[in-house]
Amino acid sequence: MNAVLRTTLAQINPIVGDLRGNVARILKTAADHGADSDLIIFPELVLCGYPPEDLVLKPFFLEQCANALDEIITASKSFAAALVISAPELDGKAIYNTAYVIADGAIIHKSRKKHLPNYGVFDEKRIFNEGALPDAFTYKGVNVGLMTCEDMWFSDIATHFKSQQVQLLVVINASPYEVAKHDVRTHHALQRVQDSGAALIYINQVGGQDEVVFDGSSFAMQSNGQMIGKLKAFEEDFETISWHSDNNHGHLVTEAHRIEADLSAEESMYSACVLGLRDYVFKNGFKGGLIGLSGGVDSALAAAIAVDALDALNVRCVMMPTEYTSQMSLDDAAECAEKLGVVYENIGITPAFDAFKQMIPDLHGVAHENIQSRSRGVTLMALSNMHGYMVISTGNKSEMAVGYATLYGDMCGGFNPLKDLYKTEVYTLTKWRNAHKPAIGLGPEGMVIPERIITRPPSAELRPDQTDQDSLPDYDVLDDVLRCLVERDMSIEAITRRGHDKALIERVWRLLDIAEYKRRQACPGVKITSRAFGRDRRYPITNKFFNTVAD
Amino acid sequence: MNAVLRTTLAQINPIVGDLRGNVARILKTAADHGADSDLIIFPELVLCGYPPEDLVLKPFFLEQCANALDEIITASKSFAAALVISAPELDGKAIYNTAYVIADGAIIHKSRKKHLPNYGVFDEKRIFNEGALPDAFTYKGVNVGLMTCEDMWFSDIATHFKSQQVQLLVVINASPYEVAKHDVRTHHALQRVQDSGAALIYINQVGGQDEVVFDGSSFAMQSNGQMIGKLKAFEEDFETISWHSDNNHGHLVTEAHRIEADLSAEESMYSACVLGLRDYVFKNGFKGGLIGLSGGVDSALAAAIAVDALDALNVRCVMMPTEYTSQMSLDDAAECAEKLGVVYENIGITPAFDAFKQMIPDLHGVAHENIQSRSRGVTLMALSNMHGYMVISTGNKSEMAVGYATLYGDMCGGFNPLKDLYKTEVYTLTKWRNAHKPAIGLGPEGMVIPERIITRPPSAELRPDQTDQDSLPDYDVLDDVLRCLVERDMSIEAITRRGHDKALIERVWRLLDIAEYKRRQACPGVKITSRAFGRDRRYPITNKFFNTVAD
Repeated sequence: MNAVLRTTLAQINPIVGDLRGNVARILKTAADHGADSDLIIFPELVLCGYPPEDLVLKPFFLEQCANALDEIITASKSFAAALVISAPELDGKAIYNTAYVIADGAIIHKSRKKHLPNYGVFDEKRIFNEGALPDAFTYKGVNVGLMTCEDMWFSDIATHFKSQQVQLLVVINASPYEVAKHDVRTHHALQRVQDSGAALIYINQVGGQDEVVFDGSSFAMQSNGQMIGKLKAFEEDFETISWHSDNNHGHLVTEAHRIEADLSAEESMYSACVLGLRDYVFKNGFKGGLIGLSGGVDSALAAAIAVDALDALNVRCVMMPTEYTSQMSLDDAAECAEKLGVVYENIGITPAFDAFKQMIPDLHGVAHENIQSRSRGVTLMALSNMHGYMVISTGNKSEMAVGYATLYGDMCGGFNPLKDLYKTEVYTLTKWRNAHKPAIGLGPEGMVIPERIITRPPSAELRPDQTDQDSLPDYDVLDDVLRCLVERDMSIEAITRRGHDKALIERVWRLLDIAEYKRRQACPGVKITSRAFGRDRRYPITNKFFNTVAD
Repeated sequence: MNAVLRTTLAQINPIVGDLRGNVARILKTAADHGADSDLIIFPELVLCGYPPEDLVLKPFFLEQCANALDEIITASKSFAAALVISAPELDGKAIYNTAYVIADGAIIHKSRKKHLPNYGVFDEKRIFNEGALPDAFTYKGVNVGLMTCEDMWFSDIATHFKSQQVQLLVVINASPYEVAKHDVRTHHALQRVQDSGAALIYINQVGGQDEVVFDGSSFAMQSNGQMIGKLKAFEEDFETISWHSDNNHGHLVTEAHRIEADLSAEESMYSACVLGLRDYVFKNGFKGGLIGLSGGVDSALAAAIAVDALDALNVRCVMMPTEYTSQMSLDDAAECAEKLGVVYENIGITPAFDAFKQMIPDLHGVAHENIQSRSRGVTLMALSNMHGYMVISTGNKSEMAVGYATLYGDMCGGFNPLKDLYKTEVYTLTKWRNAHKPAIGLGPEGMVIPERIITRPPSAELRPDQTDQDSLPDYDVLDDVLRCLVERDMSIEAITRRGHDKALIERVWRLLDIAEYKRRQACPGVKITSRAFGRDRRYPITNKFFNTVAD
């Protein structure tokens, strides 16, 4: 039986604003796959990268996008395959998020995004106008319905396409990674297959862009809802699917293709941190990453992620002890660096600490502790300035939430791979990494983080015999309360019903509010949860709501 | 002739999230003015403060807003006057930005905001649903049309109200200050008066909230377009206007009331910086402000603003010299502190500088310069930790734009009153302040900034004989290019037509892009221009657009 349509899922990694580079990526893909395909499908806004944010508000940017699109249209004369390319479109004064079908030197169809997400990390109503209900198009005798990302989360377009006898839904996406997001996507895809009676292709981009990571994991579904192909997560990947006609009903069918196994929750979270860091560092032109190791679990996990992301050759670690640093910390940090195979330095910060004590005679309490953390920050930034390595920040989400971190001290850095991992998840991923090497990892196999780093009580070591639990509740309690407050927006009363003490909940809430000013000056990091700190959760700094609800 | 309606403009300063406090502010105003008024009109979202941001997405917050509204409804039984109170409203799953009219223990009318701004600093489509076209209501025999902020910027609602024979438009606002914004407001107000044939009351809130300052400047217009009352800028203010019936046409008329003179552009910009800083510091519970004086114009102006905002008693200044600090800087900083009447300390940072040189032997170049700036940052933060005074950051918009600032160094601080002032404007406002004391200022009269600080060439003094113009174009050129790029979104070619060199424009553009990562970690500051750095301009850090357009 001959194929009626050969479709290629092109799961690539574009760069925001890099119109020249993205055109080159698209044309190379077309050259590589064009001979064996009728329709090569690229992800949402592949031409300019996603999210382009306020670049779209610059007329000059839209003009350059139009020029880049023209380049692709001209080049398409030399391909047998048609291309699905998404780009911002200026029409009069309106700007649309538009998917184009380009074949043989012309645009043969276009479909504007109708449902513009304007929640979470998304600001599409800020920059785009809503498109009208799109119509289907016919290509090589097949009726195709083309829609963009959020358009698949509602039934109106798929239902409209059903009335147009659509056989294949093509959904192009820039859908950021979140734990368990893949299930949500396949759930919606299945509903749209049922709405339309058509087969479905879901293509997602891959790559890190500031606070979000696109995990790829593109897939195809037959019209009976069967998953018949799935691409890799967190890597560029390509697959051509040949569709045949089921002569009885006009449905498109295909044999089973490669179906990549789902990653475990741990591997997907870890891989998101790896890819987010890798793309941030290299897309921004840094030579590598620089980490202050403390002998604690956060910096150890960050170092492992950095090695998996950047290669051990491009990671430098520095231990910066004071008199409060235990021998255990010195030993464990050195061992961790050795296992990871990174350059490791030891720069004691006592000279700076002493100098500040001399300059500021009454130094005590929090000021005294922060001086140490900030002296480390200054040292790391000096090394970064000298070597061109970006400082990697290592504060976890629990610390970022309650402000258990020193602004301009351990919060220094260009990017934080742990920013959206609760402390309990830091432990989970550390144990996981000691037992598994991720598919996309560049680091060594086997145990990379010494066991004692995991088992010892966490401490900032800013005064004698300090532990985190002098200041904070146990992390399993803290993390549960934080999830209730941050991700689930629960009231104090509702949280007490989970067995937590009311005074403790109020204390955590208060700390969460007070730390907003610190978080506002924190570096970006990878979104992992349904509500990351950053653009995903927009809170006022000046905010007295807590005063209203507390006793 | 008897008044048919006495309306009170209540230009107050609510605090975001402070439901208890805002209810108290509202009830005190009602008690103070209720006996002489029929309708007391409060600004947009007065109950919860503006902008409440993602607090609105918390069901518990909406519940508490409803409780606070109930408190006002109950209290209203004891007032003769009705109140216009705006609050978030939960209806099923939809959330509206709703203006209520409350009288004698009941809601007698409500009007939901229809036009939700979702550009610039505004994210209202993120948190609110669009209301239907609101109807007018009749109170004391007068037909009143009630609308919220952005609703006045379009003609649909005013035109609808005309069909309902409205006599008075009441427009409640939370309209952030921008240079020359008042003219835009009165322009739209005049159009709505013409659309509806009604008189108009425009009430705006006053006060600082993180990055925005509300300037008040509420006003009233007769149906012939004549401005008949205007309240103060940047201060709480109240005015009761008695409307009479023009028996011929049913129009409401009134005698001329107090019309506050417009502030000069300089005074309005300066006052925005003062009020923004004052409200950030005190609403967040700091005792005062701490500034590192350098002998340069930025820190001198910031100190003057701080004294006008917080009172000299609540401002501490610190000079932190090195061997590169000139005697002129030492003298000028001391003289400036003396003129301003603030506590002044001198803490040399050579011990810390020497310590870091000892710890990091190869220290040179930018790393060597940044160590100085960061040692100052550490010192300021230690003093802040010890005294409870917030560090005031002093980088101007030109520096923030091109990254001529040290992250974790001179960028340290909780709030930056100069953040949206170009360097040329820093000079203008410095000269202005030496000749004028602003109406809302708490500082001394007369010259407060020594003349030499204004006339000497600007320098960071991080190496011998350094001046800013070693690294940057002249500030008048730089600022013009920056305005073209940042505020006007112009192409390189269009900017060259203003007489600027193409290579220079490209260099500034490149610096602007590269500094995005620094700005992301900058503290908030007052929005002054039509596009401030911060939530007003949302740019990706990872952004290769420049590579596409540069030669």
